[in-house]
Amino acid sequence: MFSAYNIIAKKRDGLALEPSEIRWFINGLVKEEIPSYQMTALLMAIYLNGMNTSETAALTDAMLYSGEVIEFEGLDVVDKHSTGGIGDKASFILGPIAAACGIRVPMIAGRGLGHTGGTIDKVESIEGFQTSIPLNDFKKNVDEHKFCLIGQTKDIAPADKIIYGLRDVTATVESVPLITASIMSKKLAEGAAAIVMDIKTGNGAFMNTKAKARALAKSIRNTGKRFNKNMITMITDMNQPLGCAIGNSLEIIESIETLKNQGPKDLTDLSIELAAAMVHAGGGAKTMGAARKQAKNALKSGAALKEFKAMIERQGGDLKVIDDYSRLPSAECVLEVTSPLKGYISKFQTKQLGMHVVELGGGRKKSSDKVDFGVGLIVKKKIGSLVKKGEVIATIHYHKHQEKLAGIIADSLINKDIKLTSKKPTKLPELIYETEITWGNRP
Amino acid sequence: MFSAYNIIAKKRDGLALEPSEIRWFINGLVKEEIPSYQMTALLMAIYLNGMNTSETAALTDAMLYSGEVIEFEGLDVVDKHSTGGIGDKASFILGPIAAACGIRVPMIAGRGLGHTGGTIDKVESIEGFQTSIPLNDFKKNVDEHKFCLIGQTKDIAPADKIIYGLRDVTATVESVPLITASIMSKKLAEGAAAIVMDIKTGNGAFMNTKAKARALAKSIRNTGKRFNKNMITMITDMNQPLGCAIGNSLEIIESIETLKNQGPKDLTDLSIELAAAMVHAGGGAKTMGAARKQAKNALKSGAALKEFKAMIERQGGDLKVIDDYSRLPSAECVLEVTSPLKGYISKFQTKQLGMHVVELGGGRKKSSDKVDFGVGLIVKKKIGSLVKKGEVIATIHYHKHQEKLAGIIADSLINKDIKLTSKKPTKLPELIYETEITWGNRP
Repeated sequence: MFSAYNIIAKKRDGLALEPSEIRWFINGLVKEEIPSYQMTALLMAIYLNGMNTSETAALTDAMLYSGEVIEFEGLDVVDKHSTGGIGDKASFILGPIAAACGIRVPMIAGRGLGHTGGTIDKVESIEGFQTSIPLNDFKKNVDEHKFCLIGQTKDIAPADKIIYGLRDVTATVESVPLITASIMSKKLAEGAAAIVMDIKTGNGAFMNTKAKARALAKSIRNTGKRFNKNMITMITDMNQPLGCAIGNSLEIIESIETLKNQGPKDLTDLSIELAAAMVHAGGGAKTMGAARKQAKNALKSGAALKEFKAMIERQGGDLKVIDDYSRLPSAECVLEVTSPLKGYISKFQTKQLGMHVVELGGGRKKSSDKVDFGVGLIVKKKIGSLVKKGEVIATIHYHKHQEKLAGIIADSLINKDIKLTSKKPTKLPELIYETEITWGNRP
Repeated sequence: MFSAYNIIAKKRDGLALEPSEIRWFINGLVKEEIPSYQMTALLMAIYLNGMNTSETAALTDAMLYSGEVIEFEGLDVVDKHSTGGIGDKASFILGPIAAACGIRVPMIAGRGLGHTGGTIDKVESIEGFQTSIPLNDFKKNVDEHKFCLIGQTKDIAPADKIIYGLRDVTATVESVPLITASIMSKKLAEGAAAIVMDIKTGNGAFMNTKAKARALAKSIRNTGKRFNKNMITMITDMNQPLGCAIGNSLEIIESIETLKNQGPKDLTDLSIELAAAMVHAGGGAKTMGAARKQAKNALKSGAALKEFKAMIERQGGDLKVIDDYSRLPSAECVLEVTSPLKGYISKFQTKQLGMHVVELGGGRKKSSDKVDFGVGLIVKKKIGSLVKKGEVIATIHYHKHQEKLAGIIADSLINKDIKLTSKKPTKLPELIYETEITWGNRP
């Protein structure tokens, strides 16, 4: 017979747990037969002693099957997940690109957490857009129309919800096996045959070093392989915002601009690369080169924009926003932040930029907070950009009653968050550091 | 401001906590402002990353002052604590000896736990004996009559009760700083100026290696010193039962026999040594040698037995048991376990002997179980004893309906728990391995 005590003691002593032990423990937690104080002791033991590939897969499996699991036929079903960063709105661009290339994209996304925004909050800036759709309809939608975007539901991996809530208050979030199981249990429940994972690294990411990002990438690929999934992991830069806009409406506008081929270069390039990875992993192209070509064409031709519009329409959103951004929520006031001297941008305190938007109400401090869609920042320069004295570096989008706060943020941006140097920095961050592919069930 | 998250994260990362952080956390736990699932995550982090002397003292302090603290005047107030073993009834002998030597002994003892028996369960074999006495009366009793023996009350270190309950189900019991704080918070609350600690080591003890026992001994001395207490730690053997009797009534009988100078040698010798340590630590003798002489005399002269009888009488117990053991609860049946061959006793599975008594009902499997005072074992031989074929090694004391169980236990004793060899073992366990003294406030 299993015993919670013995399982905790085993992990405490650095031994590997059996899949059956992990399954029993997680099932017990969900059925409320194992109390949370035993779970958190086990979580701390996992945090400190780790888990091997087999344990991580078993934990993922137990969490996955704590809820509903969607099943698709065919290998052309691909989703993408990002570990989260500042200004990361790539999903809105790569989803439509991949769909335009013939890939089915079942996307279940999250809400804002800490300093990073959430895809679901952002898309809800569009009036009428439905992010709660029954899973049956979601599947049908993906099968018939290739792209559907909804929020987390309590039917998907309920064990993850319980465990995440406990990790969040017991300092056990930053653990590779626990992050892997949390991400993968939700992604596998969507039924995708392949998953593209964008792992952010840098001072705006949860994984702040490349070594940590690499460890997570490997763990995620290994776990995906155990479930016969085709996995592509990309380690990408988060030492500055992706694109320029940070904040819900502002990011939707920038996404539409990018789909119109008028977006920032970094966001455009990364979206194409991630979409190409989806096309390649889903069997739409034999090589990454061929997939990249397809993705570029889909964007350039307007096919991706068409897919995006069709998705908005299917899910009840106000389609007119595509050509009239004033239909999106906005803040009444804009403060221009100008450079006090000439110089080159050398560094961002990227996480802090996200925190400013949370402070303005564009994100959540606690999960019950309501999000203000209109507020945000636009950061107009990138690391290495030359800035003239008096030139606008950023704009702050705020409400009338937030004038004092906007002033404080402007001061922080100039004096702390954006660093200038007189010489052009010799080493600029790369957009993508590493791409790795593991085939589970190659199309 | 303090945050439970940050305190857990600090210990998780192997850093030392501030006394103020520890105090805040424990106070929050007792006030139910910090949930148990945060406490257990911290407990696991403490288990795996340890605590230094200053942290252990702060944890002890926080637990100590979560409840009432008794204060005595003078340095002649000494208690003894044992980490628990099989057949350990030394308290009943050393308490009266120390009292007879002029030492005040405020003894708050525990109930049976796991494979070890509890002093309070044992003494309750004596009809009428009161182990629940208000703390004020307890103190008065000690001041006037030198020796009083009561059970844990909810007024003493309530934080320990909560924390122990959580450790017990999260595999965080065997941690030196946590054991130290648990023992010392309760012992310090009794107000003794000196504490003698009997740390058992061997296959019947919680600390199964000498290294672990030594680490606990050091931690306890260091913590005691921080509170200006005179500390004597003795590491003593638990590779065989102490004395012969295991089980509540049976142990009371053996204790009285020992007080009558008719007890087993090991129990007599260890009780004298521990009592001598109490006399020395409490200022009743300048050297251990002089203290030992006093202790021996107190036992030999019958002064200790007189103190024991007076204590039984004061606390309402049936005094006639001293001369008439049939007044104690007993089991109707006795099964003699005889040796199937000639040989020397070479090893006991000591813990298992305790488990047999628990199985018979003499101990608790869960805290709500009722204890049967009459059942038990008498193990008549020691490691190194020569046993003839057919000679009685042990007797099993059981109730009529337990005949089958008694048979199973007899089989286990012969085939598994008591090992015989044809050659006399060359290395016999020592009774006492190490004695260390640390003076906090030398009389």
